[in-house]
Amino acid sequence: MYTDQRSPGQPGIRTGASAPAPADPDHPSRALASFAAGLRFEAIPAAVVDRAVNLYVDWLGSALAGKGARPVESIARFARASGGREGPSEILIDRGGAPAYFAAMVNAAASHFVEQDDVHNGSVLHPATVVFPVVLALAQESGASGREMMTAAVAGYEVGIRIGEYMGRSHYKVFHTTGTVGTLAAAAAAGRLLGLDEAGMLHAFGSAGTQASGLWEFLRDAADSKQLHTAMAAANGLMAARLAADGFRGAARILEGAQGMAAGMSSDADPARLLDRLGQRWATMETSFKYHAACRHTHPAADALLAVIAEHGVRVHDIVHVTARVHQGAIDVLGNVRVPHTVHQAKFNMGTVLGIVAHRGYAGVHEFEQGYDAPEIAAFRDKVAMVLDEEVDRAYPARWIGKVSVELADGRILQGRVDEPKGDPGNTLSREEISAKFLRLAAFAGGAQAPQAQAMLDRAWEIAALPNVGSVFAPGRSA
Amino acid sequence: MYTDQRSPGQPGIRTGASAPAPADPDHPSRALASFAAGLRFEAIPAAVVDRAVNLYVDWLGSALAGKGARPVESIARFARASGGREGPSEILIDRGGAPAYFAAMVNAAASHFVEQDDVHNGSVLHPATVVFPVVLALAQESGASGREMMTAAVAGYEVGIRIGEYMGRSHYKVFHTTGTVGTLAAAAAAGRLLGLDEAGMLHAFGSAGTQASGLWEFLRDAADSKQLHTAMAAANGLMAARLAADGFRGAARILEGAQGMAAGMSSDADPARLLDRLGQRWATMETSFKYHAACRHTHPAADALLAVIAEHGVRVHDIVHVTARVHQGAIDVLGNVRVPHTVHQAKFNMGTVLGIVAHRGYAGVHEFEQGYDAPEIAAFRDKVAMVLDEEVDRAYPARWIGKVSVELADGRILQGRVDEPKGDPGNTLSREEISAKFLRLAAFAGGAQAPQAQAMLDRAWEIAALPNVGSVFAPGRSA
Repeated sequence: MYTDQRSPGQPGIRTGASAPAPADPDHPSRALASFAAGLRFEAIPAAVVDRAVNLYVDWLGSALAGKGARPVESIARFARASGGREGPSEILIDRGGAPAYFAAMVNAAASHFVEQDDVHNGSVLHPATVVFPVVLALAQESGASGREMMTAAVAGYEVGIRIGEYMGRSHYKVFHTTGTVGTLAAAAAAGRLLGLDEAGMLHAFGSAGTQASGLWEFLRDAADSKQLHTAMAAANGLMAARLAADGFRGAARILEGAQGMAAGMSSDADPARLLDRLGQRWATMETSFKYHAACRHTHPAADALLAVIAEHGVRVHDIVHVTARVHQGAIDVLGNVRVPHTVHQAKFNMGTVLGIVAHRGYAGVHEFEQGYDAPEIAAFRDKVAMVLDEEVDRAYPARWIGKVSVELADGRILQGRVDEPKGDPGNTLSREEISAKFLRLAAFAGGAQAPQAQAMLDRAWEIAALPNVGSVFAPGRSA
Repeated sequence: MYTDQRSPGQPGIRTGASAPAPADPDHPSRALASFAAGLRFEAIPAAVVDRAVNLYVDWLGSALAGKGARPVESIARFARASGGREGPSEILIDRGGAPAYFAAMVNAAASHFVEQDDVHNGSVLHPATVVFPVVLALAQESGASGREMMTAAVAGYEVGIRIGEYMGRSHYKVFHTTGTVGTLAAAAAAGRLLGLDEAGMLHAFGSAGTQASGLWEFLRDAADSKQLHTAMAAANGLMAARLAADGFRGAARILEGAQGMAAGMSSDADPARLLDRLGQRWATMETSFKYHAACRHTHPAADALLAVIAEHGVRVHDIVHVTARVHQGAIDVLGNVRVPHTVHQAKFNMGTVLGIVAHRGYAGVHEFEQGYDAPEIAAFRDKVAMVLDEEVDRAYPARWIGKVSVELADGRILQGRVDEPKGDPGNTLSREEISAKFLRLAAFAGGAQAPQAQAMLDRAWEIAALPNVGSVFAPGRSA
């Protein structure tokens, strides 16, 4: 009964074989789609591939660490009950097979739970947790090589980070960028692995962007939405790409159009960021690893406090007050919680994080679980205040400077400062440190124990050389 | 390894048995959740139930008419490939079984395709296409009665419509309200059918609202996003409610909070609308049926033009120009397309719609398929202009007044006006008209042919009396 609804003369409709349109500076969505669709492994510098492998290994640990977490298990139960009981892709928390859609959904929920997944400063996007679940699930489904998978991942990082920068600080004030923009990062990665051409990728962007969602409101209530955001960014991005491969059409200017993402969800979008040195500046390299298992906005102050303690030999009991000098974004995100009621909320509480680093020297997953509300931590928490610092705020989000003022019982006030918190690009983690973090996270919730965890780790480091990605648990077996 | 993250003293955490909290005027999300969770069939006036049945029958025809439509079939293929191959709920376009999640997704895509599904004027929300797919799929899954299903549907209508009104005109300028707010309508309906209590319903709202999405940008390109919006509003709303039933927590103030939906996506949100005469004013009764198979924004002018033609015995060939006097929302949504390239785009083109009603007397699904771009329609299209009319704009969205000025070849200018387009609450469709529309839509794409279509129709009219909703195709059989 239906007439064909494809109009032959219109650009961007055919998926699969159309010739690339000439680059149009007024159509950045298309230029970005062209880049993502055309990215080749050979064009990615070796250092970028190496860094992407580091990010993958780092992500894998976070995904395993989500095992047993109530919100993650809840999403997994939903997936199982909704048709996700078997399939070619692995759900990492229970090693079951599932359709790629649900594997991506659950692994994305899992890898964002312990707050140890990576972050890109300038975009305030957590790329790994929305990109790797998608490329792993699709690579396992299709038998893709590690090269193909890593190429797709880099496409996701480069696209997602630029869109995050484009959407600006006004967006992040209300929206959880990893939920919203993460949908496009996931779509770019999925589209690349599915082999979409420029036109198809543009359709995928359209279908992804029109599903972009995620509000910060949940933080006030210690609600579980953060995992839902990453789960659905990954799943919806994968769906958008898969639909595009099937001829499903999206808006051509979902980023910059008059009724597109920026029009609806940003008041300071900067189009220049979308194509910023595309193919020359590798934003993947700028991604930070999380050393502490807390919201990244707490890390600069945490490291600055550790620096003061180390430099001056401060005893924690001599500290009577700490002022964390922060950017406005930290106040927006962290300012809602005075007394945390859950581990997850504690990771978004500056006082708790500083209390843990002051008392334990490190705020890792175990340190939070073993008493985020212990008496000495709670007492320290009440000594901490955040204030807006003009220098820190001006540098943000390009640089996340940490500054603290520490008042001691003897009346001295010590100043602490770090210009690059541990894990930042200029202070990145070594492969040894990433391996140690992986083993810690794999064991944390029983996701994988030695010696298997070590075997998984060895295989993960070789990801870019694998002819077939296969199972992350059983080398040589398809997933 | 995880400590329990539920804090026993916090309200709204337990799902299933908690006592309702006292009504708090500063917490409209909770009051709305309380209403939805507590709505009983006995509390719904008989006239409202009757109207809801009319809306259900009307919806069922639209769902069948989506069969064969490229975007709808694409979403169905995605669902099948992602785990949606079997289950207790019916996918209406192919009569296959699927998990409730995917059945809701596909039926919601299908029922919004031919632009014949209902609309509530004040909220500019299409409730049926996001509410009925969810309640039907869940009722088929659980063996619920027609009463339970209709109670849940009314909960979805009452909640969704009020939230749509709350989000205001600024929201609709960029966002497709049926995509965004539709997620909450779906969650309310699903939550009621799943038996959530107030606390659980509030969690469902939080998880639904943080997934609210849908941008108008796609209209410019005749893209397929409209079906994606309804598909995912229904699916995400169902997911939100199901997660809440499993203890998954959402933001408590997703509508009114400082980082909630209105904060992110509206500049004129009016909190007074959220609880407007809840339980006394039945917004379900205010919902309009679509007589023409086009964007509702074209209907007032279409009916006004038909009125001029009838009153003055105008011959279509004597018309040299038509000015449609419209509200700003019509210009925002319809103004992007000058020359439609698809049937769907034609339904959003004022000139085409007026051309079809002028030439054919009615703009139904067949009239669009049989030549939206026929020479005489295209010629008429170019004679039509839209202008903003102050009176029409002031009345909108509460009332959708239609006004046209028709210039004839002899120089006369005739004025046409309708205060309630056909299908509006004061000019509603009779059961006979709804039945005729159902049979037309069921046959349109081969969704169901007589005599089966008549049997389905007879059964659909009895929905509220069925002890077990079961299959819509095979009476007496579970789905």
